[in-house]
Order: sequence, then C-alpha cells, then structure tokens
Amino acid sequence: MGELRKDYILDRWVIMASERAKRPHQFKQHNEERDFTDKCFFCPGREDQTTPTRYTVDNDDGSWRIRVMENKFPAVKPEGKHAIETHNSFYTFSDAFGEHEIIVETDHHEKQLWDVEVEHFKEVLQTYNKRIRALQHKEGIKYVQVFKNHGKDAGTSVKHSHSQVIAYNKVPEVVQQECNAVKAYSSSHEGNCPYCKIIENEKSGERKCFENENFIAFTPYASRFPFEIWIFPKQHRIYFPEDNLLDDLAGIMHQTLKKLKEINASFNYVLHYSPSDEDNLHFHIEVLPRIAKWAGFEFNGTVINIMPPENSAKFYRGEK
Amino acid sequence: MGELRKDYILDRWVIMASERAKRPHQFKQHNEERDFTDKCFFCPGREDQTTPTRYTVDNDDGSWRIRVMENKFPAVKPEGKHAIETHNSFYTFSDAFGEHEIIVETDHHEKQLWDVEVEHFKEVLQTYNKRIRALQHKEGIKYVQVFKNHGKDAGTSVKHSHSQVIAYNKVPEVVQQECNAVKAYSSSHEGNCPYCKIIENEKSGERKCFENENFIAFTPYASRFPFEIWIFPKQHRIYFPEDNLLDDLAGIMHQTLKKLKEINASFNYVLHYSPSDEDNLHFHIEVLPRIAKWAGFEFNGTVINIMPPENSAKFYRGEK
Repeated sequence: MGELRKDYILDRWVIMASERAKRPHQFKQHNEERDFTDKCFFCPGREDQTTPTRYTVDNDDGSWRIRVMENKFPAVKPEGKHAIETHNSFYTFSDAFGEHEIIVETDHHEKQLWDVEVEHFKEVLQTYNKRIRALQHKEGIKYVQVFKNHGKDAGTSVKHSHSQVIAYNKVPEVVQQECNAVKAYSSSHEGNCPYCKIIENEKSGERKCFENENFIAFTPYASRFPFEIWIFPKQHRIYFPEDNLLDDLAGIMHQTLKKLKEINASFNYVLHYSPSDEDNLHFHIEVLPRIAKWAGFEFNGTVINIMPPENSAKFYRGEK
Repeated sequence: MGELRKDYILDRWVIMASERAKRPHQFKQHNEERDFTDKCFFCPGREDQTTPTRYTVDNDDGSWRIRVMENKFPAVKPEGKHAIETHNSFYTFSDAFGEHEIIVETDHHEKQLWDVEVEHFKEVLQTYNKRIRALQHKEGIKYVQVFKNHGKDAGTSVKHSHSQVIAYNKVPEVVQQECNAVKAYSSSHEGNCPYCKIIENEKSGERKCFENENFIAFTPYASRFPFEIWIFPKQHRIYFPEDNLLDDLAGIMHQTLKKLKEINASFNYVLHYSPSDEDNLHFHIEVLPRIAKWAGFEFNGTVINIMPPENSAKFYRGEK
C-alpha cells in the first residue's frame, strides 16, 4: 500500500506509489517509451491481459474505439484510509487512496491524439466528463484529475495514445492555489472572476492564438514552457463544459495539437476546474509542451523560459 | 532585454530569457549534451573565447583549477530596472535583472564533481561562498541562488563540470515558502527552528544516510524524487557555513555524489539559506536526482514518486 505524504512544513505533497515501484526496468529504463506494436496491451484484442473494462465508446459492429480501464500500476487504490493524519508535528499522511484509470483514446495503435478527427476528439472529451462524474462522488475523493502525457519527454511510458484519470483524497495544490487566488481577487473586485477579465484582456492581444464561438486559446503572460497554451470557455463555467459546447472545445484543442504535431513536441495537458460549488474556478485546460528541461534553478521556484509567449502565439497563428 | 514576469494571479514567476533564445540549435536540440573535448569553452586555454574571468582558484604554476565567469547566455543581466511593477491588475514584471555566472569546477574536462578529491570539493564550496558574498549586496539583488546541474536529464547543456550562480531581484519562491513556514512554526513553538527539530527526528531514523561531526544527510519524508537527499549543518546556521565547517560539508557531499555515481544519475542540487537576518532559514543543500520524469499530474501539484525515501536511504547507506 502506497502513501500520500506532505512535506514536513511546506504545502507540498507526494504520492509514494509502491505499486508502481514494482514496474520492470524501473529507474534508468523507466522513461523509455515502449512501442511493441505486436504486444501492445492497449490495442484491441488484448483486453484479457489488462484490468477489466470500465467504460467504452463503441463502433456499430460492437468493437470499441475508446476504452477505459484501471491503471495496471496504479498510483492510488480504493483501499485503506483516506483521512489525512499528522503525527509528531511533521509527518502528515494518508494511504495512497483513490482511483487511477487509463483512457485509451483510439483503437488505432499508430494514431496519436493529434491525428484523430474533431468528432472523435469530442468523444474523448465526453469520456473525460463521464469519468469525472463517475468518480467524483465516491467516498473520500476530493478531486478527479484528468491529464494526458504525450511523448517520452512528457513522461509517457506507453506509446499507444491515452489519457489518465487520478481521483484522490486531496485537491491538487495548483488547483487549490488557483481557487485561493480567485477568492482573493473576487473579494476585492465585486465578486468578479479574474480569469473572465484575463480572457477579455488577452482576446484582443498579441498572445491570442485561436478563438471560436465558445472558446479561446492564448499563451499565458508568464508561460513556464515554450509554446505553453491555455484554453478557456469564454463564458464563465466552473465545471467541465456542457455537451453542446464540446464541438468548439474539440475544435480548438484539435487546432492546438495540430500545431504541436508540426514540431513533434512532447506535451502534457491538464484539466482545471472547481473542486466544489463554493470554489469559483473558471474551467480551463493547460497544455504544457516539454521541449526544454527544468534544472536546479527551476526547482527552487522561478522558471527560466527561453521562448516568450508572444513568439509562441505567432507560431500558433502561423505567422513567421 | 529579458523580463521577469509573475503569473496573472498565482505567486509563480518566470524569467523570459531572450538572450538564451539566441542559442543555436534551440528547442529540440536544446537538451542535448555537448561534449566536444577539442573545443570545450570551459577548458583551460580557451579563456579568450569566453566572457572575462571573475575569480579563480589557482595552482602553484599560476594556472587555474576553478574559474568563475559570466554565463555567455545569461538568464539575467545587470541592466535595466530591477523594481517590480504591476500594470492593469494582472501584469507584474521587471527587467530580467541580475548576474548569471558559471563556476567551472575543475580544469579537467573529463572529471565530474563526483570524481574530485574532498579537498577540491571544499574549494568549490568556498567558491560558492565567495560568489554569494560578492553578489549579495549589489543593488537590486535579493538572493544569490547557487545550483548545479549534472547530466542531460538534469538540464545540462555542457558536459564540463560546472555550477551556476543566479543573483536576481527576487527571493526564489520555494525559499520564500520555507521562510514563511519557518516563521509560522517558530511563532507557535517558542521561536524554535522546525528544521532543528526535523534533524533531531531524522538523526535516529530509517531515513538517515550519512553523518559526521557537523553535518547530517537524510532522505526527506516526502521525497519528490527517487534518491532525493538533503544535507544540513547539525547546528543552526542561517547562512553559508563558516570555513572551519567546510571539510565536513565537502566530506558529506562527496559521500553523497559517490553513491549517485554508482547509478550514473543525472542530478541537480540547490543551496537554501536565509535571504536576510530576519529570516531564520536553516542552511541546507537539496540534492535532486533526475531519474524519473515529471508528467501532467505533477504539474498540478502532487508528485508521484516510485521510490520511498526509506529505500533510498538504504541505497545511500550501502544496505541491500
């Protein structure tokens, strides 16, 4: 059984994932991408070699084109104690409690998410929403974190295109910091959402990349990564957007990833939304290309980025 | 001229390093380690192809064995405005102000820091102290960050063994968080230092790795990285330790890096100390091996670590 642990005195949390420590070729080989087409566990026909199916989107012939299952090497498990305790002042912990799922995004081994049709991308997004709804009210769960790792520089160990879901007993630190900052801003600005104001500012500025009826994509002012890009619904939404908005969200995500395909960038993306009705966090997706490595300086806080977001935005807009 | 920028609403800072953007082969090739023995700019005899020497430790024959110079591609420069301003609520910035130095740790191209003698390691530490003292009182400087990146997974672009110094107009976020947490703890614990108490706890526990008269090394309870290890003076010190303690600091650092050499680990290390007399931050060095990659989940806060610190400590102690 793994543990969730907090730093002695900082608000910094780590899941000690003992299950994952059992992975073969750990450490030095850990980051190598595995691409064994003839024995990929995420391909159709090998379902009996994985954990059981939890959800699928199916083709007319009954075969699946999107499939959800438990991660075979879960960081968290629905076992043990989810209540967080502190012993002897400095040792704050719980069991590594929760659910860790894999969303296989396509039945095609060779297709990456930037290769699929917009309509299929929409189904992937709908699957995110389904999994959030399926997990968020389970006992002990405080947040359902949906994210994707693409490419070996982004921490992927399996090439077959997939997203991950980690539902656990804590609100992720960055999401909590955002909620706190939103609350602080709102209280001094007549209850307004800061992100609504930021969107208004960036909409007409040099960092705007894409826009459609319901969504906007821009490179953030203090981008931590070259080509970092954030995608927001233009109208205030605190949860995953309703189904009638997903054509536009799929469209703008598709536009974004098509550009990243041009430079074959490894990337992560991470969903941000309100942990509860009381929080007022504007839903958004942060796409984090992993072209530059963080070094010692970055791990003490301030990040060095060699690509100003104004230049990244030109790249997304197709300008020289 | 680059800029220091703060996130719209979070306490998260980025240096937009326009000078560094001019580096050849940027982005995709950016992380490749360069090891051109026959044209290494850090080797003796090529001083005329680098920025001017700022400090050296010399051999009897007048040649240097440690050399400090300005980084040719500095993230910050001693030009422009160091005062931080906020415009239009969300845009907080200054010029990317400060000094960015390289410490070439040895005149031997092939020697890494884990290869040098303890006595030489002590001279490297003394050089750190000299550079902190030389830069910390310059106008606009709030903190002198000393760090080392070793190996390509740790963000090094030059193989010749070196450390870096970035003196800039801000206290690094993590150092500031530590100062805040120390202050909060002290105020409810009769002015005591939490790290003194943590050292007392870890001294006799399963996470202790090395100890000598003046220093202790242990793997932290909530380690974010496999083999993460922290080194503290056992007596409370808020600044870089005095010269008579550096034999012991060099000794314990040497022991630590020798173990990392066994697994050929890329690593960063970062010095933490008090930004001012008012802060009471216990000096320490955090060594962060870079064996596992952070992925999407980690960038929202909680880190997954597949190596419990209790196991890492066994590795350092040489137990099976």
